[in-house]
Formats: sequence, structure tokens, C-alpha cells
Amino acid sequence: MHNCLVAQSGGPTVAINSSLAGVIQGAINSQYFDKIYGSLNGVQGLLNGRLMDLTKKVEETPMFIDLLQKSPSMYLGSCRYQLPDYSEDDAPYAYIFNKFEEYEIDAFFYIGGNDSMDTVDKLNAYAQQIGNPIKIVGIPKTIDNDLCVTDHTPGYGSAAKYVASTLLEIGHDTSIYPINSVTIVEIMGRDAGWLAGSSVLARNSYNHAPHLIYLPEVAFNEAEFIEDVKAAIEKYNNVVIAVSEGIKDADGKYISATTAVEDTFGHSQLSGTGKCLEYIIKENLQVKVRSVEINILQRSAAHMSSVTDIGEAFRLGMHAVKVATDGKSGVMVTAVRKSNDPYAVDMGDTDVKNVAGLVKHVPREWINERGNDVTQEFIDYAYPLILGEPVVKYQRGIPDYLDVSHLYPENK
Amino acid sequence: MHNCLVAQSGGPTVAINSSLAGVIQGAINSQYFDKIYGSLNGVQGLLNGRLMDLTKKVEETPMFIDLLQKSPSMYLGSCRYQLPDYSEDDAPYAYIFNKFEEYEIDAFFYIGGNDSMDTVDKLNAYAQQIGNPIKIVGIPKTIDNDLCVTDHTPGYGSAAKYVASTLLEIGHDTSIYPINSVTIVEIMGRDAGWLAGSSVLARNSYNHAPHLIYLPEVAFNEAEFIEDVKAAIEKYNNVVIAVSEGIKDADGKYISATTAVEDTFGHSQLSGTGKCLEYIIKENLQVKVRSVEINILQRSAAHMSSVTDIGEAFRLGMHAVKVATDGKSGVMVTAVRKSNDPYAVDMGDTDVKNVAGLVKHVPREWINERGNDVTQEFIDYAYPLILGEPVVKYQRGIPDYLDVSHLYPENK
Repeated sequence: MHNCLVAQSGGPTVAINSSLAGVIQGAINSQYFDKIYGSLNGVQGLLNGRLMDLTKKVEETPMFIDLLQKSPSMYLGSCRYQLPDYSEDDAPYAYIFNKFEEYEIDAFFYIGGNDSMDTVDKLNAYAQQIGNPIKIVGIPKTIDNDLCVTDHTPGYGSAAKYVASTLLEIGHDTSIYPINSVTIVEIMGRDAGWLAGSSVLARNSYNHAPHLIYLPEVAFNEAEFIEDVKAAIEKYNNVVIAVSEGIKDADGKYISATTAVEDTFGHSQLSGTGKCLEYIIKENLQVKVRSVEINILQRSAAHMSSVTDIGEAFRLGMHAVKVATDGKSGVMVTAVRKSNDPYAVDMGDTDVKNVAGLVKHVPREWINERGNDVTQEFIDYAYPLILGEPVVKYQRGIPDYLDVSHLYPENK
Repeated sequence: MHNCLVAQSGGPTVAINSSLAGVIQGAINSQYFDKIYGSLNGVQGLLNGRLMDLTKKVEETPMFIDLLQKSPSMYLGSCRYQLPDYSEDDAPYAYIFNKFEEYEIDAFFYIGGNDSMDTVDKLNAYAQQIGNPIKIVGIPKTIDNDLCVTDHTPGYGSAAKYVASTLLEIGHDTSIYPINSVTIVEIMGRDAGWLAGSSVLARNSYNHAPHLIYLPEVAFNEAEFIEDVKAAIEKYNNVVIAVSEGIKDADGKYISATTAVEDTFGHSQLSGTGKCLEYIIKENLQVKVRSVEINILQRSAAHMSSVTDIGEAFRLGMHAVKVATDGKSGVMVTAVRKSNDPYAVDMGDTDVKNVAGLVKHVPREWINERGNDVTQEFIDYAYPLILGEPVVKYQRGIPDYLDVSHLYPENK
């Protein structure tokens, strides 16, 4: 028997299931693998014996691969488990590789972000040490788009499309009153501003929102911010600001409300970046202001995904199978941009060591000098990634996604 | 010349432009009206002379009515202007009615919520007093669905569809980790729980989220809430709670963080209902918790509207024209539900005095005894309103909506 195993890790995106679908399709097409197993909750499924027979799922569920491509979040679940260094503790490694042998696993595909690529690296190194010929291949995903080497990461294009469309709708929403107002939109991205920057794609022939864009790559300056907002109000009346949750001041300190909130009940809690900018404006400018946090919607709104993104996620999944059957291990598959007009990408791969634990930032020259907008280079880069709308099926008025009840607690 | 005038007021919905489109189509079909004027920013457009010739817009813009039906927010803008009592100050009335005569306005259509119906009432009373035969007709809109007499309000069905779909996507998002967690989703509705209640429509054959639903119609009890959440965690691990922003305690006090937040900069601000429940859970239960505020997205996401809602908003706009040409004034058009299966509505009308300034609450018997869920009656009521998906056109990766630059400040 030649079997393969696939797992997902990290935070959800709306494209990560499409990469899973690509692995399944690739494994079927290869005619090399007999069975495709899915490990529930990342490597944890291996440790606690929760494996799912995906070959059977494909046979039993009509349109399984198509539905999987269009379903948000993670069909196999995720985990926060970090493998120890095997030179210090090889017990989980021994256990995992026993499972690999028990299930006759020839290839393991791990779909995740830079932490997950660290796991790929560790498992591959251990395999080499014990002389196990298993192929271990990483497949990138993250809405943050901050993985190195690959031109971009599956999940980013769809999140960017959602962010841009939502910012356009917020632009419409804020235009209705002939008054001055400021709306701050907080967008995910702790370390890199790729997703906040994509809000620029909301601008069209009539919509100028977001009027200001702040990314973590440039130190946040409160005095300049107040000046910028004041000038934008003068010009536009109703101002929309897109801000990355990860902006920091010149000392590298996150801009967020750090003192505890106290409420009716005496409970306390911290507040976010958008709220913090809201307070700054309230204190310094006499203007109506509110903040909106797009929150987890930007990574789970599969009803508004990018066909380009979903398609590439699928191709990368398929390519990972090819890379493994070609005999490579310890690599991550990558998207290699060949041209922008027409937009074209090839599939490649890179040693996971070039990706694991590293962060790709927005180049400084793709942000304007003042640090309150992105440049045409950013637009040219991000624009092709949000193109195309999938046909989303609806059932009883809500999107028709794949049943994920296998992730729920058992016997409950 | 027989002309008519139309304006929009209150907060945006994704259906209010469809009612405007219905008025335009109805006025064209009637063959009675020569010109259709739109007043920019509600009655304020009349006061400052900002009228738009919509007859010309229809002639000049290809697909204008179709695009208008599918564009979010308010094409004519809104206002916060409240007319004074004319017995105390009739100056604005005199000015407005002079404008009506100047533009030869035979009928005025005002699309809005219960405050706007108060404006309809006042203008109609003034018209009768001065013997002006103008017909003044209100057309309901609000995502809150809290207008009396009408079975439901345009804008609600689309917002409910967005809320339900988003809750389904949040259900997927929260299912990925085999841990205990609580996600609180704060939904609009200051006085009535119609929109928060619609989150129940996210449940399907596998998704149980939201597991708890809290509406303003039942006094919020903190101790019971903690018990409910605890029990839900036992059963589901990852718990999703839908809560209306307007929940109050037994003394009628809003449940929200009332003490000031203090941040890095010493700025202070209040916090919302979702955040407040987040603190309560953090203080009382050892569990990962976060809160999500859907915020203005739920009233502006035209990319996810309900065809039923958009269609009825259009029909109500058309019906308002018929009501006016039939000689009625001081009325609001209404949706009258004839049957649920198959779902069917007739168009009716009611004296605006039955609507102005009043609020329709969710019936107590449509909420379960414990006050933490809605009943089948609620589901049967809300379900037909979210059905049907429009074909939304996209351009350059984002929705193709109507240009609203006429609402922007001039000469800027």
C-alpha cells in the first residue's frame, strides 16, 4: 500500500480547503496513492488517532471536491501544537513515525503558515535521521500573505477581495450625511500590512475610500496622523481610514489601548488599534468618529472569495503531490509570478528553511513617503489576486458549505 | 406639469435604493408624472435647493434602475434634520411648500423609519391646513424591522440574510480547535431584537451556532447568562452567542461597558455590549473568549442581499406611487403577509400616525422561556424574508455599484 496523509494548521482562510481539495485531486490523479488520510486537528490527529479516510469521503459525498473548494475555515480542523526539538524530546516523533508506518504513509502534506513550515522542517529532519523515506511537503496558506519566497499565499486574495469590497460598501455607507465624520476600519495583520494595504482596491472611478492607509511597516506618528486626518476631512468631509491591527510607534510599541477598560460590572479588558485611533481623533478633532473591526469575517467569508485565489490554492495542492512523487521532501510549494498583464503564475517549490519562522513585509517603496497610503506597485501586485467570483450555492437562504460536524466534540 | 419628489432618510439599508427604484419605475409607469425629482439629504435638499432630476438619470444612465436596486446605502443621501412643530415654527414648512409649488410637485415620497414617518405626518398635516392638495406618502425601511403595522420592513430581510450567513461562517471558523471557546457576536438593534434573532437562521443540518441568542425584549440576567454559557460549553466546546446591542437589565439599564476606557495616550471612551459580555465571561469562566461586532457591514453588504427583500422594497416603492395617484396622503405603504407556505405578501397602506415614533418588538412568545433563544414561530416568520440571491455584477474584483459622487462635497 502507498498512502498519503494531509493536515491543516494555523488560522483559517477561505482557500485552505481548496488546497486540501487539490491534494486529494492530485493524489487521485497520480494513481500512485491507494488511500488519502486526513489528520484531524493538525498533527494532533496523528497523536490521538483521529484520522479520516478522505478517499471514502470523495466516493460517498456527491460533489465533495467542488464543495470543499468553496467551504470556509478548515475541514480537517487546526491545532496549536508545537513539536519539541527532537534532540531534546523525540517521544512525539517516535509516536508520529510509528503511525506513519502503521498507516503506510509515503507522503505527508501540511497546509499552513510559517509555524507549520517549521513543523515540516522538523519532521523532515527527523525522517532523514532515522532513514525513513517519507516525503514531507508544505503548502502555504495565510490571509496575512507574509510567507517568504512564494509570490503570495493562498487565502490572501480572497481576504483582500473581501476587505476591498467591504471598504467600498463602507464608503457608500459613510457618504450619506453632509457632515464631517471619520470611520476607522481595523484590518488583520499583526506583522505585515498586506491585507490592510489591499483596502486600496476599494477605490474606483468615484470612490476614494479608504482615504488613508496605515501599515505596520512604517512607524506610526500620532502628530502626523492627526494632521493627515484633518487634511482629509477638509477635502472629503466623510473620511475612511484603513489600519492594520499591527501598527507600532517608533519604539516598536503596538498602538492599542493598553490600560484596562472598566465596565458596569467592574470587569476589565484591553482595547484594540481601531479603538485607539478613535480615541486619538476624539481627543484632538471635533468630529464624529467610529471604528469598525472586520475581525474574523475577513478570513471566513467564503461567500465572497476570489476565483483566482481558490484556483491557485487548488493548483498548489495538486503541485505538492507532484513534488512528493518526484521525490522531494522538506520543501514548500510556491506561486511564482511570471507576468502581471496578462497575470500568470507557475508553481514552484523551496526548501522550508527559507520560509519557517520568517516574515515577508510590504516593501517600504510600495508605501508612500508619508506612510499613509500604498503606491501603484502595491496595487499592480495585489489587483490580479482578487479577480473572479465563484458560483456559491445557497440552501435555505444561506451558503451551502460542507458539513464539519466531525470537528465537534463526540458523544455530546 | 405634474411632478413628484422622492427622498430618503434615517440609517442606510441595502434595500432602500430598491424602493427608490420602485418609486421611479412606478412614476414612469403611471404616465401621470412628467418629472421625478430626488431631494438630496432628505428634506434638507428641499431647504438648500439640492434637487436631482431622476427622469434624466434614467434616460442617461444605462441600466440605472437595475443598478440602483442592487446598490447599497442611500443614493439620495440622508439627513438628521427634524422638522419643528409647525404651530411653533412654520418657517421651514413655508419654505418647503414654496419649493413644492416652484417645482410643481404633486406627490412627495419619503423613504425612512419611524422618525421619517413623523415627518410625513407633519408635512401632511401642514398641507391640509394650508389646503395644498399634495399627496405625501411614506415608504418603510429599516434593518431593525421595528416599524408597526407592516408585516416587516424592507432592508430587514437582506440584513438578516447577511447576519445568518455570517454566523454560519463564524460557526465554521470557531469549530477548528478542539478546545473550549466563546465567541460573542454583537448585532444591531437598539430597541428590538428582530435582527439579532435572525441569527437563528444560520443553523442547519450540522451547524448549531449561534448556541445562545439574547434580545432586548427580555431583561438580561447576568447570573443566568453565566450558567447558560457554562452549560453550552459543556455541550458544544466552541460556543457562539448572538446578542442584540440593545439588551438591558431588569432596571432597563443597557448592558454595556459604562466606565471609560483609558489607553496608552490617556484617551477615554465607552465600550459596547459584546465587549461587556466578553468581560463577564472572562471574569467568571476560565475560557478563551472574543467578541465580534458586525457593525455597519450588516446594513451595507449589498453583495449579499435577499432577492425577496429587494423585490418587495421595489414593489412598495411602486405601490406608493399608486397610493398617491389614488388620492391618498399621510399614509405609509405596508407589506401584508397573506401566507407563509407558499410565502406571499400583498401591498397595503396605513395612516402614518399608526407608525410614527412607535416601535414593534419581537413578541415575548417568539422567545423561549429562558430568554436565551427564539422559537419556531420566529423562524417561520423570518425565514422567507432571506430567500433568493441576486446576480451581483463585479468590476475589477469588487461589486459594481452606482456612482454616488453627487453626495460628496462640491468643489473639493
